[in-house]
Amino acid sequence: MNDITKLLGIRHPVLQGGMAWVAEHRLAAAVSNGGGLGVIAGGSADADFVRGQIRQARELTDKPFGVNVMLLSPFADDLMQLVIDEKVSAVTTGAGNPGKYIEALKAAGIIVMPVVASVAYAKRMERGGADAVIAEGSEAGGHIGETTTMNLVPQVVDAVSIPVIAAGGIADGRGAVAAFMLGAKGVQVGTRFLVAKEAVVAQEYKDRVIAAGDTDSVVTGRFTGHPVRVLRNKLTREILSKEKEEMSIEEFEEMLSGTLRKAVVEGDADYGSLMAGQSAALVTKEQSAADIIEDIVGGMRAVYASLGDYYAK
Amino acid sequence: MNDITKLLGIRHPVLQGGMAWVAEHRLAAAVSNGGGLGVIAGGSADADFVRGQIRQARELTDKPFGVNVMLLSPFADDLMQLVIDEKVSAVTTGAGNPGKYIEALKAAGIIVMPVVASVAYAKRMERGGADAVIAEGSEAGGHIGETTTMNLVPQVVDAVSIPVIAAGGIADGRGAVAAFMLGAKGVQVGTRFLVAKEAVVAQEYKDRVIAAGDTDSVVTGRFTGHPVRVLRNKLTREILSKEKEEMSIEEFEEMLSGTLRKAVVEGDADYGSLMAGQSAALVTKEQSAADIIEDIVGGMRAVYASLGDYYAK
Repeated sequence: MNDITKLLGIRHPVLQGGMAWVAEHRLAAAVSNGGGLGVIAGGSADADFVRGQIRQARELTDKPFGVNVMLLSPFADDLMQLVIDEKVSAVTTGAGNPGKYIEALKAAGIIVMPVVASVAYAKRMERGGADAVIAEGSEAGGHIGETTTMNLVPQVVDAVSIPVIAAGGIADGRGAVAAFMLGAKGVQVGTRFLVAKEAVVAQEYKDRVIAAGDTDSVVTGRFTGHPVRVLRNKLTREILSKEKEEMSIEEFEEMLSGTLRKAVVEGDADYGSLMAGQSAALVTKEQSAADIIEDIVGGMRAVYASLGDYYAK
Repeated sequence: MNDITKLLGIRHPVLQGGMAWVAEHRLAAAVSNGGGLGVIAGGSADADFVRGQIRQARELTDKPFGVNVMLLSPFADDLMQLVIDEKVSAVTTGAGNPGKYIEALKAAGIIVMPVVASVAYAKRMERGGADAVIAEGSEAGGHIGETTTMNLVPQVVDAVSIPVIAAGGIADGRGAVAAFMLGAKGVQVGTRFLVAKEAVVAQEYKDRVIAAGDTDSVVTGRFTGHPVRVLRNKLTREILSKEKEEMSIEEFEEMLSGTLRKAVVEGDADYGSLMAGQSAALVTKEQSAADIIEDIVGGMRAVYASLGDYYAK
């Protein structure tokens, strides 16, 4: 038990990333049943859809799980009310400032854990009443910040006194223990859960993640100020070549529109947006969510057990 | 003792980065006297200059030290012959493939440790006979690759059987232990040694490193295929604004030409190239090289001593 497992009432300090389209009720329930914290991604869905997801998850697990609210969603207000009405255990947030919701969420006993990519933002979240922050490094998939996990985590740990969960680039026990050494009390894992058996993701997308090596990760849209990390494919080749010429933010957004759905649902590995972190290179097979958690936790035990090399005592 | 300290005959598995202009004989000797491996940067200097550096370092220390050979230097051939003639303990290399030199260096008993930024390159270096590789993540200062330390190190560890030294983003004991957890046997530290008392670096440059926070790091020249990480200043503002319009690689190189010297020697913090890694945000004061090493090593001991939180045994 540590601060995070106690806070969340879970067995292992492993959270599942709130990946839009990917993180629906089956994956979330499987992660929670495996001893971690499963998270349903609100994405751009409306409250009715997410209510259905929450209730279906409850049919599959009696363990705590969370909902990720993407604050740019037009339904963010509705989703926050929904998680209060449904008494969901925890909320993680992305793409914005959840400050105005925190008081009501806390009053309803919901644990609030915003994803942050900078020290200033982490401090603001602590002041606003967040229970923990998820410090996400730039090796993560999807929308990213600039600072890597190795540098962001210790800085956030130094800056706040609430527990810090590390995210970005963590796919096995080595990464998880490294994050703990940097001062984190938990880890959030995205990419590896993307290929979980229970993740309803087209096999073509999972296959690309499994096959990916270190040079397959690429960042698009840096010029927009909102960079997105995905795996290289025909789509990124076209986007990056247009970025080199001249491209407006509108054109960029139009090229990306609907492409995550195309990847997850239709399995278009060429022109779908294959969101994945750099840790895709460390992900080598599809496994059940429970096996993934056991593997990460077992890897942590193995790393700890192998200590003694240096300054061990 | 571990593979790296044994290999190099040093006390602590801490190597100093071969920072051009910064890493001259005083810094290298101070790091070696402190128990790490000091490294003299060859940069673009000729053999006569570097010979002088080696001999002056030997007046200050009887401990092993290394020379970093930047392979794009017009004097690379001469420097490789020089380190053989001078029987320098170790060579680190950057900006190219040292393959053709390895046999002669090894024959002379010199330890060869190329800096690598990808898995394929690490494997090639192992096949070529390198004694170890320095896997440098994209949070490092100066010329960088794409993969972060958190992701590059375990992948390189999995791919080669020679020891791996982690570089990029490591400035304290937490980062060093995290690197060990990822499978590294040593760490290379650059930015923190840049502000060592023995580093002959203009105070204005050191002050910017010490003051830097997480949002002060920026990457220029991504469009050239050879990105460079520095601290934000007037120079980077101008370069980044020109990059947004249209800029040729020649214009970019001209804007940067001489700017590292301007920072290190002249102390022009506005228009000098303030090369530094993201770990600048973790660097808070000027100290002697020996104190920096003691602090990193003491930090490692403290991190190990605090274990027990999770899966500790």
